[in-house]
Amino acid sequence: MQDFFKYLNKNIDINDEAKFLISSIIKIREFKKGEILITQGQSKVTDTYFVLSGCLRSYVICENGKEHTVQFAIKDWWISDYIAYYGKGEAILTVECLTDCIVLQSDKLSIEKVFEKFPEIETFHRKNLENSFVRLNKRIVNQLQLNARDRYINFTADFPKMESVAKNYHIASYLGITQQSLSRIRTQK
Amino acid sequence: MQDFFKYLNKNIDINDEAKFLISSIIKIREFKKGEILITQGQSKVTDTYFVLSGCLRSYVICENGKEHTVQFAIKDWWISDYIAYYGKGEAILTVECLTDCIVLQSDKLSIEKVFEKFPEIETFHRKNLENSFVRLNKRIVNQLQLNARDRYINFTADFPKMESVAKNYHIASYLGITQQSLSRIRTQK
Repeated sequence: MQDFFKYLNKNIDINDEAKFLISSIIKIREFKKGEILITQGQSKVTDTYFVLSGCLRSYVICENGKEHTVQFAIKDWWISDYIAYYGKGEAILTVECLTDCIVLQSDKLSIEKVFEKFPEIETFHRKNLENSFVRLNKRIVNQLQLNARDRYINFTADFPKMESVAKNYHIASYLGITQQSLSRIRTQK
Repeated sequence: MQDFFKYLNKNIDINDEAKFLISSIIKIREFKKGEILITQGQSKVTDTYFVLSGCLRSYVICENGKEHTVQFAIKDWWISDYIAYYGKGEAILTVECLTDCIVLQSDKLSIEKVFEKFPEIETFHRKNLENSFVRLNKRIVNQLQLNARDRYINFTADFPKMESVAKNYHIASYLGITQQSLSRIRTQK
């Protein structure tokens, strides 16, 4: 929990009252490699996860059974199925641990209560969300305009250690390319 | 401006003081079809636009000169180059009017002042941003898992009137398909 307060304190001043409230709504969870936090099709998604250590990914399984990686998350990142978490309805994505992980888990209603009580934490969250919004916009722009090789180069810059923990098809499907293309690009590089 | 207050009032109660402040930081602008609001490469992007009437799109031009549509915006939508607006650096995108348009224009610093003074407006914006974040996530998931035909069907549901104002290459590049594929899908439909 101290790591999380350190992360918050890098950006905003939070007092003891806020720390107390945050501690009361957050659970520290440990998961083993391969464990599933959210399962595509579950009736709803109430929780979001902040990564203290380890690596996770979210993915969608198509009708033809193929998996497509939507997001990777490493230390200090948040992960969930945000389509179901912020929207309504059942989970569209599965979230799994690619390594042993320690995460902080909390639910949307409790987080809203923190925002009500501490508007400065809502502002911090809002700015984080703006950054995530920029990242998603960049991903869409890159997907539209960059070739596979340049997308791969960007990926290795964003996630330098991911290649040692993620499988080839995790990365290939994240980049929207085939595993054969990924192998070819790696060889050329 | 009354239309904008009506849009806000659908979601939150805003008092006269808030209306006065908002009116002071927003300009009503009219643009003709084809006019450009933001140009890819301009040194910075300070402003965002709320559509009162008409239709706009943002797009990126690749090194090979090809245009890729990133976003369409119709009544009650916001549009800007959010990568440059929320981030830093020069404009990545161009924003153009596809029809004659009336928009509200404001800048990030002034909007931050409104948030400081009226936290309930910040909350409203934060929830809007969450919805936009969901939309972008859905777009990425659809791009990964849906075939071109299903992406097109989703598009016509989201933007029922777009086909009468947008050119084929605007829509095809938004969907990440060729104009030939778009024509084939339309014929099959």
